[in-house]
Amino acid sequence: MKRISWTEFTNLTVSDRIPHLGKENDPAEPFHVLYAQQFSRPVLDELCLLADHIRKLHKTKEGADFLRARLSHRTAMNLFAQPSTRTWMSFQLAEQNLGMPTSDIRDVSTSSQAKGETLQNSIRTFSSYVDLIVMRHPDRGAAELAAYEMNMADRRIPVFNGGSGQDQHPTQALLDIYTLQKSLGEIDGKKIAMVGDLMRGRTVRSLSYLMKNYKGVEIYYVAPERLRIGDDIKEFLKRQHIRYTESDNLEAIIPIVDAVYMTRIQWEWDKAAGATTQDAKYDPRFVFKKEYLGRMKQKSCLLHPLPKINEIDSELDYVEDARVVYWRQERNGMWIRAALIARVFDVDKEIMAHAAE
Amino acid sequence: MKRISWTEFTNLTVSDRIPHLGKENDPAEPFHVLYAQQFSRPVLDELCLLADHIRKLHKTKEGADFLRARLSHRTAMNLFAQPSTRTWMSFQLAEQNLGMPTSDIRDVSTSSQAKGETLQNSIRTFSSYVDLIVMRHPDRGAAELAAYEMNMADRRIPVFNGGSGQDQHPTQALLDIYTLQKSLGEIDGKKIAMVGDLMRGRTVRSLSYLMKNYKGVEIYYVAPERLRIGDDIKEFLKRQHIRYTESDNLEAIIPIVDAVYMTRIQWEWDKAAGATTQDAKYDPRFVFKKEYLGRMKQKSCLLHPLPKINEIDSELDYVEDARVVYWRQERNGMWIRAALIARVFDVDKEIMAHAAE
Amino acid sequence: MKRISWTEFTNLTVSDRIPHLGKENDPAEPFHVLYAQQFSRPVLDELCLLADHIRKLHKTKEGADFLRARLSHRTAMNLFAQPSTRTWMSFQLAEQNLGMPTSDIRDVSTSSQAKGETLQNSIRTFSSYVDLIVMRHPDRGAAELAAYEMNMADRRIPVFNGGSGQDQHPTQALLDIYTLQKSLGEIDGKKIAMVGDLMRGRTVRSLSYLMKNYKGVEIYYVAPERLRIGDDIKEFLKRQHIRYTESDNLEAIIPIVDAVYMTRIQWEWDKAAGATTQDAKYDPRFVFKKEYLGRMKQKSCLLHPLPKINEIDSELDYVEDARVVYWRQERNGMWIRAALIARVFDVDKEIMAHAAE
Repeated sequence: MKRISWTEFTNLTVSDRIPHLGKENDPAEPFHVLYAQQFSRPVLDELCLLADHIRKLHKTKEGADFLRARLSHRTAMNLFAQPSTRTWMSFQLAEQNLGMPTSDIRDVSTSSQAKGETLQNSIRTFSSYVDLIVMRHPDRGAAELAAYEMNMADRRIPVFNGGSGQDQHPTQALLDIYTLQKSLGEIDGKKIAMVGDLMRGRTVRSLSYLMKNYKGVEIYYVAPERLRIGDDIKEFLKRQHIRYTESDNLEAIIPIVDAVYMTRIQWEWDKAAGATTQDAKYDPRFVFKKEYLGRMKQKSCLLHPLPKINEIDSELDYVEDARVVYWRQERNGMWIRAALIARVFDVDKEIMAHAAE
Repeated sequence: MKRISWTEFTNLTVSDRIPHLGKENDPAEPFHVLYAQQFSRPVLDELCLLADHIRKLHKTKEGADFLRARLSHRTAMNLFAQPSTRTWMSFQLAEQNLGMPTSDIRDVSTSSQAKGETLQNSIRTFSSYVDLIVMRHPDRGAAELAAYEMNMADRRIPVFNGGSGQDQHPTQALLDIYTLQKSLGEIDGKKIAMVGDLMRGRTVRSLSYLMKNYKGVEIYYVAPERLRIGDDIKEFLKRQHIRYTESDNLEAIIPIVDAVYMTRIQWEWDKAAGATTQDAKYDPRFVFKKEYLGRMKQKSCLLHPLPKINEIDSELDYVEDARVVYWRQERNGMWIRAALIARVFDVDKEIMAHAAE
Repeated sequence: MKRISWTEFTNLTVSDRIPHLGKENDPAEPFHVLYAQQFSRPVLDELCLLADHIRKLHKTKEGADFLRARLSHRTAMNLFAQPSTRTWMSFQLAEQNLGMPTSDIRDVSTSSQAKGETLQNSIRTFSSYVDLIVMRHPDRGAAELAAYEMNMADRRIPVFNGGSGQDQHPTQALLDIYTLQKSLGEIDGKKIAMVGDLMRGRTVRSLSYLMKNYKGVEIYYVAPERLRIGDDIKEFLKRQHIRYTESDNLEAIIPIVDAVYMTRIQWEWDKAAGATTQDAKYDPRFVFKKEYLGRMKQKSCLLHPLPKINEIDSELDYVEDARVVYWRQERNGMWIRAALIARVFDVDKEIMAHAAE
């Protein structure tokens, strides 16, 4: 790994940073996980396949115990300096299902940073004890700084971005891909609607980036005028020759698409800007109504990164219909994260071999 | 499992709810654990026996490792939205002793409910990741709502009530039964004094309900006038033909009974109502004095659900006397909870078989 | 174990308390770990050797799994009522690396003490569930009280002091010894500089006490006038015939010594006393500058108990030089704590035997 200064690192484009985030013996292979862009199509396909094998192995006691023996010699730290229950649990259980004991910090007020220690030094300390750090942090670039620090250290352990600042949330994008692929068979050639707060939702941004790996995908962005997808994403799609349409008519789009990816209106931003809950939180045009389900294609799926408020009719929570996949999508997150950890720690091949038995 | 609406469910009596809380293939067998009333005499007897075997197996490394291999393929979540150290630890260690890694939330301020998610949706999310949820929640009925949600879900995992609202605390009652049985040999025909804050103590209520499973039990309720046992419990005992006496003379009752179950005066309620600590906290008539121990029957026991303040002379904490069982009672809680989990996950028979070897 | 009253216990000198902290069948052997003075030279040597074997065993999956099977039948509680991330993590990972599931409390506001329970009763409760308690507590003497309570209990489990009040921090001293020995080959006859806030730093005090176990050691105390080492320590050294020098010239001492032990100026005390950060936090005379490294002996080492602020030039964080050992020192803490736990639970010999294979 060539050492560069932090300034040099931050001046690099995301693409040029990627080799610095790779394994020492194979820089193209993700080691630190910071950006959705780190994942090529072959890696995505292999991760989905591995996640599927992990999921199936876990169904039997023999398989679950086999998985728990894979990384029983490793430990993980989940450093969540920002509130998050689902990402934290998903990672923690992924780690535990591979046999890693975890050390969990969910509040940095108890840390040495209170005594004036830098984040770099804290990360170096934590990395003395464990073999993996998953972090969520309010500061933009905190996960990058941690990964960079590990590149400079004797004991280079992987850092996963569990959602830092307004940056990406790369493992969320992985679980969305895994869920799409599992539900639709393949993603190539599919029409995908992304609905809701496209301006502020991290997940639609990361998922859009990943679409460049699939052929003939068409995206429908369905959002209120004020919450439309960012121009940077549209520029990216144009460069990648990915077709997209913008719309504010969810109902019209339902029967056309293969997947509907609903998102929550992040009204906490509006609230901070002085809006009252009523006007900001709820726009009935962007609510997935119960009757929409029947109008979806036979082989299609309804996703949501969750938590959801009222943007999906809550009766759908209890409908037995193979197209309603948002609960399974959460569990998929645990499996794809386990797959990612297994791959970073090079136990993917032994899992695949065991699954093939 | 027949699906009914939440309104229908809440309109059912506790007895009529019980089949909805059972295993799918055997509705009489507890799956969700919400009420002491779910436990019949045969189940209580088997749980006590199983707890005893678990306790003994745990004494050797071979036995402890055998236990930890039973549920090493399962995971548990302890969702404690209300302060509790002892119930939380007791469950956590019970789970860990069966090999289950745990995910622990001890403060819901970090959860998605802050973003407006419903408790139902949070529970559904958590249930995506784990195989058991133990919950304590300030809202009355929260554990019922969680269990009901699981009945509606694809992935029905058990919910245990670790003390919600002013509802029951069923696993506390189980550990009290286990301790009584272990100390007295059997409960049938025994005289049991329950002392202290009988009006507000959840444990005496749950324990009173469980007495219907034992023949010829006689209860002595010893409390200040203002803290007497509730009329609903007295009505219940009459219907069940269980003899009971009310008294305010602890000293007189000591030599008569087989068990003394002390409880703490919950002065936080009085304080909230404007009382000063002095008058509410301490009533010397309901304190178990050191010299009382010598007046107890030779084969008898002194219990307390703990924490205790000054209602038992603290010198008794250090007395070596087989009748002082309140510390062992705590450890019993871990064993009976382990037994309950083992039974819900159908590994009870293999534990019994191993213990018999 | 002879029972004595708490008053009798607290009236004993530290030396006379030591047998009360030992194993039942061997009072000279540490069971409760409260003071650096409990460790004799043979015990220190054996712990360092054991830590080294644990460290090496952990490098292979086979070895790490062997270690995790040693105490898989035991559980540990980390009761940290005071902020601490590094000591907490270090203990937690030491326990997990020996296979102990952990129960972690990092805030006592959730405990029964809020309901009026005494610390003694809380400790007795916790000890019902687990096999080891590691505690950090703001109250001076809290760890002693807990250890004493365990001596009075049926179920006597070990209590380790993870830093209570202004008392010692004995396991920190152990890791410093381990690091010195590993870096220098041996400690006998070595010259050791301790630099910085010698008045208020717990670690320099504990380390000074331990020096009595090594022959011909010479200590250089380098501190600002107002932060000089306490007279009690100087008295102790005189009684033990350990040579020491006081100085305020770090630069002059660098080439002479075998080890430089830097410490942080604990400016939070000055701040509390009304000082502004500028004058109290930073004194350039007691900063280890980058160029000092080149002037150190070839075989020497630079230690710091961490966290550090600006008392070591941060460029040294990234220097590849065998003398800069403060990061490894942290990881050593995990190994020496694992060694200590292994010894207290009598699995040290089987680890040594396995390592010798």
